[in-house]
Amino acid sequence: MSDTTADSPIGVFDSGVGGLTVLKAIRATSPAENLLYLGDTARLPYGTKSPASVLRYARRATAHLQVRGIKLLVIACNTASAVALSDLQRELEPLPVIGVVRPGAAAAVERRPGARHLVLATEATVRLGAYGGAIRELDSAATVQELACEMLVALAEEGWTHGSVATAIIGKYLRPILDAKNAARPDSLILGCTHFPLLRDAIREVAGPQISITDSATTAAAVVARQLASCGLERRARSAAKTRLLATDGASRFARVGGSFLGESLVAGDIELVDL
Amino acid sequence: MSDTTADSPIGVFDSGVGGLTVLKAIRATSPAENLLYLGDTARLPYGTKSPASVLRYARRATAHLQVRGIKLLVIACNTASAVALSDLQRELEPLPVIGVVRPGAAAAVERRPGARHLVLATEATVRLGAYGGAIRELDSAATVQELACEMLVALAEEGWTHGSVATAIIGKYLRPILDAKNAARPDSLILGCTHFPLLRDAIREVAGPQISITDSATTAAAVVARQLASCGLERRARSAAKTRLLATDGASRFARVGGSFLGESLVAGDIELVDL
Repeated sequence: MSDTTADSPIGVFDSGVGGLTVLKAIRATSPAENLLYLGDTARLPYGTKSPASVLRYARRATAHLQVRGIKLLVIACNTASAVALSDLQRELEPLPVIGVVRPGAAAAVERRPGARHLVLATEATVRLGAYGGAIRELDSAATVQELACEMLVALAEEGWTHGSVATAIIGKYLRPILDAKNAARPDSLILGCTHFPLLRDAIREVAGPQISITDSATTAAAVVARQLASCGLERRARSAAKTRLLATDGASRFARVGGSFLGESLVAGDIELVDL
Repeated sequence: MSDTTADSPIGVFDSGVGGLTVLKAIRATSPAENLLYLGDTARLPYGTKSPASVLRYARRATAHLQVRGIKLLVIACNTASAVALSDLQRELEPLPVIGVVRPGAAAAVERRPGARHLVLATEATVRLGAYGGAIRELDSAATVQELACEMLVALAEEGWTHGSVATAIIGKYLRPILDAKNAARPDSLILGCTHFPLLRDAIREVAGPQISITDSATTAAAVVARQLASCGLERRARSAAKTRLLATDGASRFARVGGSFLGESLVAGDIELVDL
């Protein structure tokens, strides 16, 4: 591992472009930081793969970021956080490693104690029950239901984030649960996949104004800022901050789809292809 | 390579469960044949990956099938057929290798000469223009438009093959093209992804009764039967035919989703995991 300093980048890792919503949130919260993003597009999606495969992929990708001398690692993928966080924390020590599941769970619990949480996530995240575990640890009065919504990943990637098709698909997942009798109806929605912040407006439209909606991108960014401060690793902005984007496959698709996740237009030349 | 006989299985390869629609068609056409299916679920989907990655994956998977002594190989994935067919045909010689693009193109041309074809496919298949090339070679009077429909892959995998959400998604892709002025409106639809036969009814509902719909699963199965006959490799049914299913990841998901593609229920124990 290279020696790291405050100027070293924060490493942000995801299976594809979804983690760019986390990168965007970190840029908003910590604008002086250099950032190095790696999207493992050759192996995406993680959400339907087995835990053993996800752990293997995450190890390979994060080892690459570590070699490049990052000062902190963010697992900006709920599935990889659910599967691999504790292993990676142990294996990459003393590098601080932050996942997105626990920050999301903590923010939802803080916002509405004793809530009935509904977590929207990928199949793998749901199967692991990661949010359920994290929430119940923080709030024994809370109840948690986790729902796999694979179509929402494709929906966000296709860019159909608003309009009747988006609300029809979201409604097909949510209506049976939201239309439940009062005592069972959730009052907190957690967006447990980094693709889903793009669908926030459409989800709000379907779920109505009463329910709280928490996404783990913004809450993870806040944890990153706190962690940097507590380690004395915050960068003082002597020069403009740099963001570098790496992908393991398909630079042009990464640029096209990723641009909408990052909220700025990208071209293929902005993306460096790496072979893991 | 092992010595192959008429009793050797036909190898069928796909990135995941989609190729099971082709396997099902081969079973219907050639019920006496032993079949060996490999779904490369650890690396799916191929449809959004780069050609270089798809070729690498296809080589690894088909080499595994060849070692197991298949007598004929079917690339039951449009993306892999578009990218890798000619390379695999050359590299695996003398093993006969059949893709799904050319049979689908030939069937559509035969059904409606001089047609205006609309090919529904994955991003990678569209980018390669494989159907356009194959059709124009067979029918210089035909016109071809290719449309990437990634959401339809997720839709088929989620099992939402009928109903208002399915027709809304299909309509969002097709309506702008089907509502074109007469001279440009397609009169032939080609299902250029092995996931799409599951959506045939919903596609028909959106597209109306006039348009012809061709899927490459059934047409590829007919080519397989002809090829076996011409090589004298047809199996005489001394004993019941066997189908073996291999996957590179996630046996339980393969069983659950694959069952609807194959049209019979599967359990995880039916799937053998292989590490490529």
